[in-house]
Amino acid sequence: MKRIPFFAIMGAIAAGVGGAMTVAAAGAGYENTLIFGGKIPPGYRDWRLISVAHEEGALNDIRAVFGNDLAIKAYRDGKRPFPDGAIIARLAWSYVPSEEYDKAFGRRQSFVAGPPTNVQFMVKNAREYASTGGWGFAQFDDGKPTHVAAPGCFSCHVPAKARDFVFTRYSP
Amino acid sequence: MKRIPFFAIMGAIAAGVGGAMTVAAAGAGYENTLIFGGKIPPGYRDWRLISVAHEEGALNDIRAVFGNDLAIKAYRDGKRPFPDGAIIARLAWSYVPSEEYDKAFGRRQSFVAGPPTNVQFMVKNAREYASTGGWGFAQFDDGKPTHVAAPGCFSCHVPAKARDFVFTRYSP
Repeated sequence: MKRIPFFAIMGAIAAGVGGAMTVAAAGAGYENTLIFGGKIPPGYRDWRLISVAHEEGALNDIRAVFGNDLAIKAYRDGKRPFPDGAIIARLAWSYVPSEEYDKAFGRRQSFVAGPPTNVQFMVKNAREYASTGGWGFAQFDDGKPTHVAAPGCFSCHVPAKARDFVFTRYSP
Repeated sequence: MKRIPFFAIMGAIAAGVGGAMTVAAAGAGYENTLIFGGKIPPGYRDWRLISVAHEEGALNDIRAVFGNDLAIKAYRDGKRPFPDGAIIARLAWSYVPSEEYDKAFGRRQSFVAGPPTNVQFMVKNAREYASTGGWGFAQFDDGKPTHVAAPGCFSCHVPAKARDFVFTRYSP
């Protein structure tokens, strides 16, 4: 696998230059590994919520992380590594102030979700994605795959190795 | 119904002096209207997500809004008013910076959900809650009801009358 500087990848992801980055970063064998056949897993928006977060900076989004049944069960049971078939979805929306909420609260303090920006998935298959911690990665912008099985995604998740490469903690 | 200044109520809610406020604000007939019998609706944490938000100031939280099946269906069908039985849950967590995420992104920009602060519910029953727009309201702190059927909750929702008193919009 070709090595790519960590922050170069992060910058590319943050800037949303997904298509070009994927091609540049994809080592042999990656080009044709279209996770989920290049399609968004159906029904992910109905999955249960794992947690929420806000990213400032170039991302400037508010985000929700969902898990399919296998992922939620592993979270609640505290089981790691996640079982094959577990899928985690991160859906982000643009971060916008809400005048309407501010009025109700009597001061400027409210931020809500605007239009969606992109959605990312991690799917667990220990054998198929052995070279990236057992996880396949994918990102979709406007429904189109922009990062698929990208090793750059995995690089960013390495610091969470002790938690099976998943950053997000379950919020009760 | 006794009238209470709007911002006095908002301040009381924001400051979290729920128990005292409820007693002070409750007009005749409210004291004994314990929504859900004073219990948290079981399983609400598994409901589907409507949207997310962040409140600065005294609240300083990040929040998720969930709907039971009736509420989600009404949202997706664009149906207003919501049908009897629809329940909307707003779960908030303290808003905390994440050093771990910041490291992954290469700059200070990340905020995640800390411990839960409280959870609020709106339940629709046009007849039972006719005097508050057809909605009963409840808040639970640490699993204990602190606001129940409080008219103060309703006052804050009046500006959203055109959307059946519900502020939160569905985030696709």
